[in-house]
Amino acid sequence: MTDSFGILYRLTDWGGTHDEYLEGLVEGCPQGIVLDMPFLEEEMQRRAPNSDRESTQRHEDDPVEFLSGLDAGNVTTGEPIRFRIPNHDVRIDERNRFVIKPSHASYTYYRKYGYRDNELCGRASARETACRVVAGAIAKMVLRRNGIEIHAETLRRGTPACEGDSVGAVIGCRILGAPTGLGEPLYDKFSARLAFAMMSINAAKGFEIGLGYQAAEMGGSRYNDVQNPDFSYRTNHDGGVQGGITNGQEVYFTVAFKPIPTVRFDQETIDYDGTPAIYHGSNRNDLCVAPRVLPIVEAMAAMVTLDFMLLRNNELEHNDPNNEK
Amino acid sequence: MTDSFGILYRLTDWGGTHDEYLEGLVEGCPQGIVLDMPFLEEEMQRRAPNSDRESTQRHEDDPVEFLSGLDAGNVTTGEPIRFRIPNHDVRIDERNRFVIKPSHASYTYYRKYGYRDNELCGRASARETACRVVAGAIAKMVLRRNGIEIHAETLRRGTPACEGDSVGAVIGCRILGAPTGLGEPLYDKFSARLAFAMMSINAAKGFEIGLGYQAAEMGGSRYNDVQNPDFSYRTNHDGGVQGGITNGQEVYFTVAFKPIPTVRFDQETIDYDGTPAIYHGSNRNDLCVAPRVLPIVEAMAAMVTLDFMLLRNNELEHNDPNNEK
Amino acid sequence: MTDSFGILYRLTDWGGTHDEYLEGLVEGCPQGIVLDMPFLEEEMQRRAPNSDRESTQRHEDDPVEFLSGLDAGNVTTGEPIRFRIPNHDVRIDERNRFVIKPSHASYTYYRKYGYRDNELCGRASARETACRVVAGAIAKMVLRRNGIEIHAETLRRGTPACEGDSVGAVIGCRILGAPTGLGEPLYDKFSARLAFAMMSINAAKGFEIGLGYQAAEMGGSRYNDVQNPDFSYRTNHDGGVQGGITNGQEVYFTVAFKPIPTVRFDQETIDYDGTPAIYHGSNRNDLCVAPRVLPIVEAMAAMVTLDFMLLRNNELEHNDPNNEK
Amino acid sequence: MTDSFGILYRLTDWGGTHDEYLEGLVEGCPQGIVLDMPFLEEEMQRRAPNSDRESTQRHEDDPVEFLSGLDAGNVTTGEPIRFRIPNHDVRIDERNRFVIKPSHASYTYYRKYGYRDNELCGRASARETACRVVAGAIAKMVLRRNGIEIHAETLRRGTPACEGDSVGAVIGCRILGAPTGLGEPLYDKFSARLAFAMMSINAAKGFEIGLGYQAAEMGGSRYNDVQNPDFSYRTNHDGGVQGGITNGQEVYFTVAFKPIPTVRFDQETIDYDGTPAIYHGSNRNDLCVAPRVLPIVEAMAAMVTLDFMLLRNNELEHNDPNNEK
Repeated sequence: MTDSFGILYRLTDWGGTHDEYLEGLVEGCPQGIVLDMPFLEEEMQRRAPNSDRESTQRHEDDPVEFLSGLDAGNVTTGEPIRFRIPNHDVRIDERNRFVIKPSHASYTYYRKYGYRDNELCGRASARETACRVVAGAIAKMVLRRNGIEIHAETLRRGTPACEGDSVGAVIGCRILGAPTGLGEPLYDKFSARLAFAMMSINAAKGFEIGLGYQAAEMGGSRYNDVQNPDFSYRTNHDGGVQGGITNGQEVYFTVAFKPIPTVRFDQETIDYDGTPAIYHGSNRNDLCVAPRVLPIVEAMAAMVTLDFMLLRNNELEHNDPNNEK
Repeated sequence: MTDSFGILYRLTDWGGTHDEYLEGLVEGCPQGIVLDMPFLEEEMQRRAPNSDRESTQRHEDDPVEFLSGLDAGNVTTGEPIRFRIPNHDVRIDERNRFVIKPSHASYTYYRKYGYRDNELCGRASARETACRVVAGAIAKMVLRRNGIEIHAETLRRGTPACEGDSVGAVIGCRILGAPTGLGEPLYDKFSARLAFAMMSINAAKGFEIGLGYQAAEMGGSRYNDVQNPDFSYRTNHDGGVQGGITNGQEVYFTVAFKPIPTVRFDQETIDYDGTPAIYHGSNRNDLCVAPRVLPIVEAMAAMVTLDFMLLRNNELEHNDPNNEK
Repeated sequence: MTDSFGILYRLTDWGGTHDEYLEGLVEGCPQGIVLDMPFLEEEMQRRAPNSDRESTQRHEDDPVEFLSGLDAGNVTTGEPIRFRIPNHDVRIDERNRFVIKPSHASYTYYRKYGYRDNELCGRASARETACRVVAGAIAKMVLRRNGIEIHAETLRRGTPACEGDSVGAVIGCRILGAPTGLGEPLYDKFSARLAFAMMSINAAKGFEIGLGYQAAEMGGSRYNDVQNPDFSYRTNHDGGVQGGITNGQEVYFTVAFKPIPTVRFDQETIDYDGTPAIYHGSNRNDLCVAPRVLPIVEAMAAMVTLDFMLLRNNELEHNDPNNEK
Repeated sequence: MTDSFGILYRLTDWGGTHDEYLEGLVEGCPQGIVLDMPFLEEEMQRRAPNSDRESTQRHEDDPVEFLSGLDAGNVTTGEPIRFRIPNHDVRIDERNRFVIKPSHASYTYYRKYGYRDNELCGRASARETACRVVAGAIAKMVLRRNGIEIHAETLRRGTPACEGDSVGAVIGCRILGAPTGLGEPLYDKFSARLAFAMMSINAAKGFEIGLGYQAAEMGGSRYNDVQNPDFSYRTNHDGGVQGGITNGQEVYFTVAFKPIPTVRFDQETIDYDGTPAIYHGSNRNDLCVAPRVLPIVEAMAAMVTLDFMLLRNNELEHNDPNNEK
């Protein structure tokens, strides 16, 4: 229950920052997909820190090694795809190790698992998301064959309260080319699964589809998406999902991320015994999840979309032999 | 996959506005719970239309009839709890029956299921949520025994563009008394499951936990929730969830709902052949999801919380060596 | 978890012998399937008691009423298919009501749910299987379009120890036309899911695939299924499944059923307080699960096979456009 | 779906004979369990080949390395438990590599995944079951604290047709101390889940609970398990499960295994092009799954039992008002 995402296209991953490898298992990938390795590398590169001054100075070069599920090195066989990404340059942050990291998983991990050592919270690290990018990149390759593309961008970033402060960000994302009919009417709405996927990303604190919170301020007469005689829509306030089901328009949504807990200067905190302590500033972490979170948002969106595409496949199989995908 | 919500505490429901009954099946309810029937009735009453001029004029009296899973009429046995709610006073809206209802499920149901009749979209009706309120009320009764209470309120409503216009709303909700440790670190984060639950409600377009979108605007130095030597928190910007796991503070979140598609005056639309048509105004529907949506938001929150409580139970079983089996 | 069977093609059912209706919900049925109503009726008839002297004298006429999921009364839309079957002629067995029925669910239901009344064990009745036959019949209609047929027969019946004694039976079943590749290598083996399905039928005590227990007595040199140059097999000792995956041969398996607990004469037992009592003989029950269990065995096999067919669909979608099904 | 077993106590495992490691992930293990490492080693030793002349000559020493989920090296924290077992002494069987191994997964893997190389069928190897033994051993440790023990034994072995022939076996297994109430009435019967678990073991071809196939030969008057005034049973023909639910008696069941496909002499076969070929005899494999399969049968039984114990825990939580949360 805890370490897997998805139903028909499913990622299970494990390993934290201090393990030799992060590892992942992708089940349900259709067979015969030729993996586009340069594209995968590019996606990993987008998630990796770059020369941007706000990005972590830690070296992260993430070669993905595939251990099973591929024929001739790059064609999916239908067997689960297993991969690993080596961890290297793992430095233990001795100064902050035994104090509670503010607004982070360290206190909740302590209460849930009994850990009194931040180095044991490795699965709460953003590093885990590298596996999501791998599974998402593969999903994108399958979706691309079905004419579906996914693009995220940074819409806005927070204002630092002082020099060296971290900031939050709002990310926007568009799913282009998704057919009508994805999503289930009651609970497994396309929008509900997207929300689940996005809120499972570290530091996510909000999700909107279409006009989102702005919709709540509007009157229905202006909000409603009216259709033309050719069934095209005059507006897309609903963000491509109506009644939980895609309507053939662009799906767009936003995700709000809070500021990264670690800043460049010292913060007050307590240790695991409740004694007042200092959480030391660091130059090794990013100050904002953007832009590195973009491929992660896209990856989660790709996995959700592919999962529903696979499900829809079943629904339609006997109906429409010329079914345009 | 489509008609069930929850893992250990699970609701499956079916039936639409035009069926004789709405029906639901609750699996996983602990045994020995004495159902508080007046409370259940009260919850149903909160969801039912009242004399408020913006509420639907349709008569909805929702007596819940339990068909199994109860001993002596009101004590849970541990068997699945089956219930039904009669539909009555079902009038067919002949005027709007064969045109696409703007910003509603009618077009997507047509594309997914081939329906060309809005009367067949009964499961997309808010009426379905009556079952959620029943399952949520039972969950609340179990949670109350564990000291957990859930309260939703209307934070703000949209501005009608003209007389008879529908409006959206933002609902806020608080979960009080939830213990630390609910939620799973990777995907099944407490916040992610809450988001999924809320976005599965009709007309929901956004979700936030804690400061949500406001968090994205802030610097980390101001945002971070710092703890005192007694482990209490000075602030609760994270809304009670850190790293996906409850931290013992109040959980609070908001949900944005769009305006109800039906307004009191005519709207332009097309029919299922693409011919321009009129979607006639009606006095029979609410103009805003609030306040009737409040018990639904609470019900979904209660189901998510109980599901995680049941899961946590397992985790803790061996901490209590005297726990009789 | 408790009331549903299947993953992509899923039946949830509820209602016992004393409810007004048995009801079922089939999710995941492909759309556009024209239901063969005479075939469905025939299947129900096979499960219903007939004039055979060993069959129950209770009148069971099982008209299936569909409540949703069908267009024009008989074409699947892809929405969940909801149906109900009325219970009538329900006579309460007052004589045996408060004593433990030997080798039946009455004691275990008492321990699990606290019931001290056999009339509350209605879900343990064979009557529940009527819903399985409906879902199985629909599955068969989909499978038939893919060239797959399923046939069960009674292989042998037990020997009554005296007049009016009930007997057990061994049922054999063949799945003809199943393509290669159904089943997953590790846990979700085709054979494992079949075993699960069969052992979920009331009174089932054993399952074999291929030579089964006879295989355990043999040497590998005689047992092994050797293939000819055209890939056909010289033998089918494995019963069509190797390594958990179908190999294109006929799948055959057997299921062992114990004698029906109720016989035509009185049996010793105790009541729910432990006081010695009599479980009275009855002429109202069958003395053997065969032949009425045949359509149930077939129904469960059909649901398993269709579930794997739907899953396989996904696997193959991008591979083989001319894919022979 | 494919690589995981269990619901609340869940094993996901991966890696084949030719990988550097077999690896497994156990989710849902209660926290605070002190792992009994000598017991684990003993279990691994039971599965490993020994000096018995019929056991494989391949050296298998299986040290289990835990990578996460343990505190102080041996106390479960409630986080997923990750472990790995190194593969060594992996020799490629060049002689048999490109021919179809009779009655094995090699043909079905070829049809499902396109493999034309037996060395790619590593997950079909009995070696995978080492992970099951690890997860099962941990489950046994939890069960032992609840007074439950599980023991398997070889009931009978097949007769070799000639010298160097492999043989099948029937294994019997007993679960002692299981409380009443495990299992769900409809589909998730204790017996059905056990059957699923056992049939997921390589080479399993049959499953019986209680008298199994013998029950099918009997009359109900002799078969029925009658209870005494103290609720004890005079017989246990049902094998401890009635109506799918444990009744407090010993659970006993058998599993039939076919002969191991590889024998000590050459067999006729074809290659992947259909050309007649020889599958060469080998001294490196066992000739019978027994006795090495015993800890695997026990492991699967332990995982099923623990899964139901965890589920039952929830059901009972409110029966014990003093149960501290």
